Amino acid sequence: MRRSVHTPAPDVASLRARLDRARGAAAKADTDALLIAPGSDLRYLIGQAGGSFERLTTLVVPAGDGTPALVLPKLEAPGYADVPTDELGVELVTWVDGDDPYRVVADRLGGPGRVAVSDTMVALHVLALRDVLGAAEQTLAGPILRELRMRKDAAEIAALRKAARAIDRVHARVGEWLRPGRTEAEVGADITAAIEAEGHTHADFVIVGSGPNGASPHHDVSDRVIERGDVVVVDIGGPIPEGYNSDCTRTYAVGAPRDADVAETYAVLERAQRAAVAAVGPGVRAAEVDAAARDAIAGAGFGEYFIHRTGHGIGLDVHEEPYIMGGNDLRLEPGMAFSVEPGIYQPGRWGARIEDIVVVTEDGVESLNTRPHGLVVLDA
Amino acid sequence: MRRSVHTPAPDVASLRARLDRARGAAAKADTDALLIAPGSDLRYLIGQAGGSFERLTTLVVPAGDGTPALVLPKLEAPGYADVPTDELGVELVTWVDGDDPYRVVADRLGGPGRVAVSDTMVALHVLALRDVLGAAEQTLAGPILRELRMRKDAAEIAALRKAARAIDRVHARVGEWLRPGRTEAEVGADITAAIEAEGHTHADFVIVGSGPNGASPHHDVSDRVIERGDVVVVDIGGPIPEGYNSDCTRTYAVGAPRDADVAETYAVLERAQRAAVAAVGPGVRAAEVDAAARDAIAGAGFGEYFIHRTGHGIGLDVHEEPYIMGGNDLRLEPGMAFSVEPGIYQPGRWGARIEDIVVVTEDGVESLNTRPHGLVVLDA
Repeated sequence: MRRSVHTPAPDVASLRARLDRARGAAAKADTDALLIAPGSDLRYLIGQAGGSFERLTTLVVPAGDGTPALVLPKLEAPGYADVPTDELGVELVTWVDGDDPYRVVADRLGGPGRVAVSDTMVALHVLALRDVLGAAEQTLAGPILRELRMRKDAAEIAALRKAARAIDRVHARVGEWLRPGRTEAEVGADITAAIEAEGHTHADFVIVGSGPNGASPHHDVSDRVIERGDVVVVDIGGPIPEGYNSDCTRTYAVGAPRDADVAETYAVLERAQRAAVAAVGPGVRAAEVDAAARDAIAGAGFGEYFIHRTGHGIGLDVHEEPYIMGGNDLRLEPGMAFSVEPGIYQPGRWGARIEDIVVVTEDGVESLNTRPHGLVVLDA
Repeated sequence: MRRSVHTPAPDVASLRARLDRARGAAAKADTDALLIAPGSDLRYLIGQAGGSFERLTTLVVPAGDGTPALVLPKLEAPGYADVPTDELGVELVTWVDGDDPYRVVADRLGGPGRVAVSDTMVALHVLALRDVLGAAEQTLAGPILRELRMRKDAAEIAALRKAARAIDRVHARVGEWLRPGRTEAEVGADITAAIEAEGHTHADFVIVGSGPNGASPHHDVSDRVIERGDVVVVDIGGPIPEGYNSDCTRTYAVGAPRDADVAETYAVLERAQRAAVAAVGPGVRAAEVDAAARDAIAGAGFGEYFIHRTGHGIGLDVHEEPYIMGGNDLRLEPGMAFSVEPGIYQPGRWGARIEDIVVVTEDGVESLNTRPHGLVVLDA
């Protein structure tokens, strides 16, 4: 259900500062305008994500001093009533069925140049804009906006901390639901309800990967019946009303693990996750954090079983910059928030992952999730 | 929560026929290949919608006789285990972090030509493909696939009928929850639970537009407290496990309507909706159906208060072709399914809308929703 209630927005001063920074960043990137689609970029800039069916809604943000305009279907306008457009200096430009909204955008932009569209704008609109913009060069707004969005301010960090606390409370209760004889889907339904009860607007993802399913990092839930001896990866999260997301993984065992190699392997994983978190700090390259986890796992002979990057940024999106992976030479700065989530996956048998959201501080790192890291062995 | 369970897929023969038709339609459109993103297009062609974060997943469907390939991140591959790729003749091509998935796609396509991307593919992938495809022309796959998707087969119609019956059961119970003193959000929460309880996987939209909020067609729910005398638009729906959607609107009054013009205006709306449904049949143009509703409303002097098109196609997407609007000269054919949903909106006071999903039959029309159309006046 889409709801217009209980979605706190940043104060007007913060939003105005973000719009100003976006205009400045566009100018610095030799880009004449940003075309922002509904979604987290829009929420970041005007405090509301909007919704979008097939009708074009886009925030036109000119580089430098021009006036931003929110172009949207007239019948969607009431949904933006809470946006302080006047205080933000954003013009509302509505269109009705039968108008050509792409032409409306093009007319505001003037002649050819470089126009950056949201990474999430759908092809339906991207290609229609391409056609109407003629010789203008189309690029992505993501690389421009990520420079703003990946540096969180204090209110954003507070929201991420609140989300982390909420998902920690859910993990604290997983033992109530994760019992032999129940399916992953049944356990997932209980977790979903708890995620909502603990203050999220909804559960965005609920992975309950039991036994061999735990070896598939992006498994969600299935009708597999959980058995005594299973190792179970539980990776869960969702947004709180402020829009910021939780994302936390712990690994459970339903009674003593069936496989003899679990304890030793898990100890390696725990060391790797700790090493990666310890590596985080201002000035450190993202790739170095990845290497800290990867080296610890590879050094113990499990390198081939760690089949994904170490982490991803998190904020209004569950996955955003910075990505903690090999080749990413980005130097971390205070305010950057991301997951540290190495995993070891034994195909056909079991998997394990430990994931915390961490924030770079002035002199190191703060882990927002605070549940113990050890394998949680449940009575069964 | 994303779930991999309980998502019945069409039989292999149906999927194979769809893939064949897609290849044929691409060839007919002088298009060398379709690049299908996760979503309803993908579900239509291989029985599974997939999920997508920032990593590229795309089904490459070459025109004519080439072998389709599902290009996807290796760690997402287990999520596609239920897709009968062998029987469908679809090759699985996985990539891992560090690979260039766009190059993988380009290498399969060979030289320049015309490549059509899903309407829902995000700019992140659209522009990266543009860059790697060089001189190839990028177009939309929507106009090609809509020719297939808007002509529903018997199984699809059966699924839409099942979804309509489910939402009808929810409307039958709205009077239990729509009471004075409750907020729209509280009523919406009850409706959401009922939508799920009646066999939908989730509630996709729940509009409870009371009093002045009813005059905003895309309102959802708010903290407005429902009062005696309110007219309330309730527009609700969601997908059933088969993936097909419900979407039905009825208008309620909480006790006798406050505004004196409701009864007369509502009678006009009822006639307009009936006239539009009666206009539906094979060979009729979509615009004629729109005109039937619009003329009835305009003829009674309410033309300026009917501020949206008459309807939209429905299937795996809530909004899809055919759109029932002025200017759409598409001739309707048996198997096409869409909403007929005129509305009359009195700004600042109240609104009303009546919406049924209908299917074009060999000799006319079948209305899938069967609840009475009259204003539902509740005891209050």
